Amino acid sequence: MSIKEGELVELTDNKNVFFLNLKSNEVFSTHKGNIYHNDIIGKEYGDTVKTHKGKEFLILKPTLYDIIMYGIKRKTQIIYPKDSAYITLKLGLTSDMKVFETGIGSGALTIVMANAVKPSGIIHAYEKEIKHLQTAKENLKLAQMDKYVHFHNKDISLGIEEKDFDAAFIDVKEPWTHIKHIKPALKKGAIIGFLVPTANQIINLLQELERHSFLKIEVKEILLREYKPIAERLRPEDRMVAHTGYLIFARNK
Amino acid sequence: MSIKEGELVELTDNKNVFFLNLKSNEVFSTHKGNIYHNDIIGKEYGDTVKTHKGKEFLILKPTLYDIIMYGIKRKTQIIYPKDSAYITLKLGLTSDMKVFETGIGSGALTIVMANAVKPSGIIHAYEKEIKHLQTAKENLKLAQMDKYVHFHNKDISLGIEEKDFDAAFIDVKEPWTHIKHIKPALKKGAIIGFLVPTANQIINLLQELERHSFLKIEVKEILLREYKPIAERLRPEDRMVAHTGYLIFARNK
Amino acid sequence: MSIKEGELVELTDNKNVFFLNLKSNEVFSTHKGNIYHNDIIGKEYGDTVKTHKGKEFLILKPTLYDIIMYGIKRKTQIIYPKDSAYITLKLGLTSDMKVFETGIGSGALTIVMANAVKPSGIIHAYEKEIKHLQTAKENLKLAQMDKYVHFHNKDISLGIEEKDFDAAFIDVKEPWTHIKHIKPALKKGAIIGFLVPTANQIINLLQELERHSFLKIEVKEILLREYKPIAERLRPEDRMVAHTGYLIFARNK
Amino acid sequence: MSIKEGELVELTDNKNVFFLNLKSNEVFSTHKGNIYHNDIIGKEYGDTVKTHKGKEFLILKPTLYDIIMYGIKRKTQIIYPKDSAYITLKLGLTSDMKVFETGIGSGALTIVMANAVKPSGIIHAYEKEIKHLQTAKENLKLAQMDKYVHFHNKDISLGIEEKDFDAAFIDVKEPWTHIKHIKPALKKGAIIGFLVPTANQIINLLQELERHSFLKIEVKEILLREYKPIAERLRPEDRMVAHTGYLIFARNK
Repeated sequence: MSIKEGELVELTDNKNVFFLNLKSNEVFSTHKGNIYHNDIIGKEYGDTVKTHKGKEFLILKPTLYDIIMYGIKRKTQIIYPKDSAYITLKLGLTSDMKVFETGIGSGALTIVMANAVKPSGIIHAYEKEIKHLQTAKENLKLAQMDKYVHFHNKDISLGIEEKDFDAAFIDVKEPWTHIKHIKPALKKGAIIGFLVPTANQIINLLQELERHSFLKIEVKEILLREYKPIAERLRPEDRMVAHTGYLIFARNK
Repeated sequence: MSIKEGELVELTDNKNVFFLNLKSNEVFSTHKGNIYHNDIIGKEYGDTVKTHKGKEFLILKPTLYDIIMYGIKRKTQIIYPKDSAYITLKLGLTSDMKVFETGIGSGALTIVMANAVKPSGIIHAYEKEIKHLQTAKENLKLAQMDKYVHFHNKDISLGIEEKDFDAAFIDVKEPWTHIKHIKPALKKGAIIGFLVPTANQIINLLQELERHSFLKIEVKEILLREYKPIAERLRPEDRMVAHTGYLIFARNK
Repeated sequence: MSIKEGELVELTDNKNVFFLNLKSNEVFSTHKGNIYHNDIIGKEYGDTVKTHKGKEFLILKPTLYDIIMYGIKRKTQIIYPKDSAYITLKLGLTSDMKVFETGIGSGALTIVMANAVKPSGIIHAYEKEIKHLQTAKENLKLAQMDKYVHFHNKDISLGIEEKDFDAAFIDVKEPWTHIKHIKPALKKGAIIGFLVPTANQIINLLQELERHSFLKIEVKEILLREYKPIAERLRPEDRMVAHTGYLIFARNK
Repeated sequence: MSIKEGELVELTDNKNVFFLNLKSNEVFSTHKGNIYHNDIIGKEYGDTVKTHKGKEFLILKPTLYDIIMYGIKRKTQIIYPKDSAYITLKLGLTSDMKVFETGIGSGALTIVMANAVKPSGIIHAYEKEIKHLQTAKENLKLAQMDKYVHFHNKDISLGIEEKDFDAAFIDVKEPWTHIKHIKPALKKGAIIGFLVPTANQIINLLQELERHSFLKIEVKEILLREYKPIAERLRPEDRMVAHTGYLIFARNK
């Protein structure tokens, strides 16, 4: 199926990654030369396109992973794929589910969770900062996942209107202060997840989860180690991200 | 919605996890006493049931995560959620995709990938060992994901009949020997992933991927560290799984 | 130089490791046959000895590392070489230093620190449990490091008699309660180290160290990953020790 | 004991670390103001000195750890304390030992090993690059460990003159090509260690060690994770050194 105007494409030459929203007659300038949108429209994913200087780029349909890593605007610290993929599976997300999320930051996790609950599920996303909400909306739109998200410009400390959530994920500074608001909005047996960067936050959160009779409480951490992909000199990268956040999960009783 | 006969339920008392396929009049014996299926049928998820000795169990709708960790038969080393969740996101799986997988072993990854491509996508799963295929089928059925999988009792070294795969995942002993069969079955731009346990396998694989002009080759490893969830004495578990496998990803050109 | 009666030797056949204190005419029974001490006395390190069944063992002079890992009695959780080696270097230990340690547990760290301060330095080791002190003494003797240690059957909460320590290492349950006793016993500029297993303990300790004006406070953790040493299938071991303790260091001001 | 001219001192204000070789009447300029050497001479370690702008610095006797991390010239990738401390303990180094090392690079490991074999042991250090040898000599002198090292401007591929080494450490690009030269120079039962950055090197080395009948071959890797030492927000640092090198150890038979 050929690529059409309006589609989002990813161009890569293995060093650079560019995202283009295709419009006929437009030109995209790179340090390797100009790329004419018209040269891409009508081609197929996996084809190549050349700049006016003759440099070749592969045309890719961007995956959600690539959109999160290279495409979205980052106005906040995002939740990375190593964590968001695990969170989504651990929460048990599947199509048709109704999920609560706050804060959504730049929406990186929301994209992954929306993909898991589509086509008939919904993410209710609370974000008190209007500017973050705008960024998240744009990013969800870029990922074509916005229709599976109901955005609320709301502070969770004022309570949650909706009920009967199948799952919830909380990424705010003092999540323990909100357990009392979240618990009544969850179905019994629903899984709730949290991301917190510090040990102090885990400690506060564990106390509050126990106080509210949550079950099967788990604390985890995921580390991603990358290797230089060179057959003759296989070795880990010199440096790595050593910490994004601790993940906490529990079952509502 | 009340729980019906024929449903798969998970029972937990925070120490034990049991899976029951509900049949009226049946009894399930545990060391904490007998549980009557009839006492569960008609209840709701999140309710509790008592054994004849009065011990309480929480009734949960099992998530795919729980099914993989506690429910499926393991006849082979399985691919764990920390890896399968990441693989699924990295491959760019989304509903409607057509995905190739071999070998499927006990089907733990297949379950997660099937959930990602449903409702209208399909996993073509090749497995040369008929006994593994049977186990995988049973496990996929348990997870209610079997209808999104086309099982083939086939050895990939005899080639792949289907074409135009959006993505592929290969978990066999000598994956480099099969690149020539897999490449023609992939769409251009499709992402292929591999799991191999040894550095020697990575080295062989990298050489072959380069020889076949795959792009954006990445080698990664995911480590999951678990913590004792005790507020007063927060600390990592004493021991951890230190290695499952290396993950390799590449784009077909 | 030939091996003499009274020496401690290590025997290994690459599967088993045995420690023998050589006495003429004695016999050591193994499941691979009997080993006669007389067959070892007079040989050299690096030679082999055979059991009465003809199975060969290599005769090694045990290193401190081997003594700690295989030779000493473990009545408590020991501090492993990955940690004790780093602690010793971080504390700046060198010959002639006067070092304070409590509690000493089975003496595994004491052995390594004693080796670093010999020939003219001294470790003052406080241990309130008499049975641990006895075990530690035996273990230090086994490692031939006992003459560099002054053992005190004392509880640090009653204060420290000695003064002017160059360095100190504290491995007790509530180290923050003892800072006020330890500080006056340290030289200005001396480095103090701690091992604690939980995040809560780190938090308490950091508060107290700041309150007492310690400088250059550092919190670290050392992970040791082992690989299967097989050239054809190089890979990490399946499981690893995921946590021994957090290490905290500071300079006395 | 008061600080004298000619001594090496470390100054720190918890943000900056400076090393000074004290000479009377000299001045050291910092962005926090000038420090007069005369203001330090005659003081004691642990005292403070003020710049002409009134900023206070703590005067410390530098530990080997600090000299390696902040003091030495780094003309090559150095072996860090997390590795050098472990290597030294694993090799079984203790005073009076005769140890072989090549290549020595900037001498960071040599400093730690020299400290372990002093006062009467010796490190024979081979380095084929004269410029590295000069740097290493200067660094060993800075650490006051040069008298325990015999420096050889030699390429190990031309063989080793000395005999009867108690231990050896090899940090060169193709260590497997030198096993045949090193083995005859080792005592039986001696431990040999290697650092290599890539998996390919481990594989080559394991093959050669087996071919030469080395025993108890081990492959290890040490990871150091650092935490932000803040009591209210305890958490790992965002990034870490993910790889320095793999450590391989074996016993000479």
